[in-house]
Amino acid sequence: MPDPVTETLGRFVAHSRWDFLPDTLRHEAKRSLLNFIGCALGVAHSPPIDMAIRVLTPLSGADRVTLLGRAERLDVLGAAFINAIGGNLLDYDDTHLRTVIHPTAPVAPAVLALAEQRGLSGADVLHAFILGAEVECRIGNAVSPGHYARGWHITSTCGVFGSAAASARLLGLHAEQTAHAVGIAASQSAGTVENLPSAAKNVSVGNAARNGVFAALLAEQGFTAAPAAIEGALGWARAMGDAPTVADIVDNLGEQWEFANNTYKPYPCGIVMHAVIDACLALRREHALAASDIAEITISGDQLLLDRGDRTVSNDRDARVSIHHCAAVSFLFGAAGLTQFEDATVHDPAVVALRARTRAMLDPNSPRGAATATVRTLDGRTLTETVAHAKGSTEQPLTDAEIEAKVRDLASHGGFSGSIDAVIAALWRLDTMPTIGPLLEALRA
Amino acid sequence: MPDPVTETLGRFVAHSRWDFLPDTLRHEAKRSLLNFIGCALGVAHSPPIDMAIRVLTPLSGADRVTLLGRAERLDVLGAAFINAIGGNLLDYDDTHLRTVIHPTAPVAPAVLALAEQRGLSGADVLHAFILGAEVECRIGNAVSPGHYARGWHITSTCGVFGSAAASARLLGLHAEQTAHAVGIAASQSAGTVENLPSAAKNVSVGNAARNGVFAALLAEQGFTAAPAAIEGALGWARAMGDAPTVADIVDNLGEQWEFANNTYKPYPCGIVMHAVIDACLALRREHALAASDIAEITISGDQLLLDRGDRTVSNDRDARVSIHHCAAVSFLFGAAGLTQFEDATVHDPAVVALRARTRAMLDPNSPRGAATATVRTLDGRTLTETVAHAKGSTEQPLTDAEIEAKVRDLASHGGFSGSIDAVIAALWRLDTMPTIGPLLEALRA
Repeated sequence: MPDPVTETLGRFVAHSRWDFLPDTLRHEAKRSLLNFIGCALGVAHSPPIDMAIRVLTPLSGADRVTLLGRAERLDVLGAAFINAIGGNLLDYDDTHLRTVIHPTAPVAPAVLALAEQRGLSGADVLHAFILGAEVECRIGNAVSPGHYARGWHITSTCGVFGSAAASARLLGLHAEQTAHAVGIAASQSAGTVENLPSAAKNVSVGNAARNGVFAALLAEQGFTAAPAAIEGALGWARAMGDAPTVADIVDNLGEQWEFANNTYKPYPCGIVMHAVIDACLALRREHALAASDIAEITISGDQLLLDRGDRTVSNDRDARVSIHHCAAVSFLFGAAGLTQFEDATVHDPAVVALRARTRAMLDPNSPRGAATATVRTLDGRTLTETVAHAKGSTEQPLTDAEIEAKVRDLASHGGFSGSIDAVIAALWRLDTMPTIGPLLEALRA
Repeated sequence: MPDPVTETLGRFVAHSRWDFLPDTLRHEAKRSLLNFIGCALGVAHSPPIDMAIRVLTPLSGADRVTLLGRAERLDVLGAAFINAIGGNLLDYDDTHLRTVIHPTAPVAPAVLALAEQRGLSGADVLHAFILGAEVECRIGNAVSPGHYARGWHITSTCGVFGSAAASARLLGLHAEQTAHAVGIAASQSAGTVENLPSAAKNVSVGNAARNGVFAALLAEQGFTAAPAAIEGALGWARAMGDAPTVADIVDNLGEQWEFANNTYKPYPCGIVMHAVIDACLALRREHALAASDIAEITISGDQLLLDRGDRTVSNDRDARVSIHHCAAVSFLFGAAGLTQFEDATVHDPAVVALRARTRAMLDPNSPRGAATATVRTLDGRTLTETVAHAKGSTEQPLTDAEIEAKVRDLASHGGFSGSIDAVIAALWRLDTMPTIGPLLEALRA
């Protein structure tokens, strides 16, 4: 008899108390939301956001909420969809390293949309967000790592559970309704790895946020799900995971917080590329290497790194999940920031040439998250650097000030017309706000 | 190198010509739409439809289209969602037997919504519907039967492809955009078997229709998908099928029509239950059996029948996929119509008692779709009947007149206030209508 996972999650979310949450967790939630907002502001006027707003504007109800960094507004479902795309579009968002889930993009947009619509407090927002992210990461644990390897984009597939749980909390659903919302999310969980280097990825990330809100609204009206929607014999975990460990979802729930392990990216690309970049930057620095010194670069790492990053690069989306591109720009520019993943850089002949001199190699003994860069120089040297824990990892977390600096850079990159200082200040005092109006006001373009 | 499935589907849908389609196929499309409309009218005022309309009304854009049998209207996404739930809610809709997909519920609502909004012709509707249903069934072939056994509700998971393809056709997308729409659908494909006896099933069926329209609208604006979204190494078929046969999707495309094998249910319950009912009805008739004569009923069939139908019954949803309930009502009432699957019948003590005397047994040699009923009587007889091809199967199809009669019964059951004669008449002449206005007018409550 398996644990009643879906029911247990329903009770956990409905019965959680804000005053029992550790301060560190509340602070981590602010860091996550700030990082998320920065990412969304960085792409507020990018083509996929423009296109999606064009599609959704005539399909939106009249009661509309804020789109981050935009003047337009959409109903709660549309806003959840757009803001989730924004949070994730640059691949610059946060990461739960055990699952490689980006927890905030699917959950925060749901929380912000419903809190705005219903006039809820900053503490409500932080609390619901923490609960949603926790549910999302724990469900991800149960199907990792086989889930991703099978072709599932885990941020999309697990994000919908987080959004549903957080939305249920904000709607004030009781435990049973909350379990139904989470169970309804199981029938909306979607998104493939094959589609990652395309705009279809944005659709599944946006849907994760949108459909979680939808699940909670349906549960509020009386829609139900199967009692064992996640853990049942023909349920979500079995369908999407080859050997799911569903007990991981509820073990030490409310005592040990998966969300507490959230991390933030120093580079706007796939998280598993970060150790590649750190290793290349270190080699360049230590040996004062110029690209013209390099005969060949070899990057080695585990199967996940290769699965994710060994690909042909033809646009900026590819570049953000390319081992070859990350190595090339690190050596060429000594940086891997927003500029290094723009199309102009992707098609820069010097970058193209150095990508072509880069090889990706499996090292089955390499730990998850690590990478080794080996450079053969034209003058015959072989130089190697291994990075076990990239900057931004649990072991080397970004500081609050580093996150602020990243957010300022993103806001500037995205042409944000408001005051980023006001946004940052509002965010740090979110737990004291009776409504999130001041934050949203600061966020509108 | 696998066939370029997604691209090929894009060309097939975009380049198909109405005047090249066989008459039999066009007629089958009318039969399917008529059967679908009847199903939707039968539940137009049922609780899940009421609840979903309550949720979606404030979330609908201002440009609204028809909800079958209702006075309210919703935008094209909302209408697609509601009408798909309606078409499938009673489990009385059509079936592609090779995959056990119910082809029409996810596709027709998309087609009707877009055709109404854009003033398209009856021939456009039939054509787009045929193409969508064909794409849906062929994609289902590639992952059957392992897909369902793994926990995927194939009508939901494959329906979204059909809706996307049909919607792309109606929007006049070119081949490449159509392939993107189908590829975007791959990132929205969802729905589990575990959730079938709950309202979460309706959500995945509704989403299949809704998300297909959404995929086409996004592709129209420039959203893309990966070139091999379906057949790629980390694409949909691999993620959702254990050993997908993707060549099945495009082999003889446009020459051999999977949709031509569509069938219609004589009983409002899971298709694999139909042979169970026929076998029980035959035994009752041939031996003039009363329920009080019966000591025990044993129903045997293949793994799919057992997976689907061997379950505890606590409500009308369970009953429609219960071997025990189907057997019990067949013997008790000599019928398995709408009344026999209502809650009052489900909780009738005589039905409860006879379900408790029914056993389900695996017969690994039983062909798909067949069932054997064996009755042990109180006076010591053992009576057996095997049905290889149930009424409504490809071998024993419903006639046009039988479909009309079914639709009239459904409309009456659902309290349809319009003229069902006008609906039926409009449907049979759909291919001659310059717009589908007359059909929709007849359909509104």
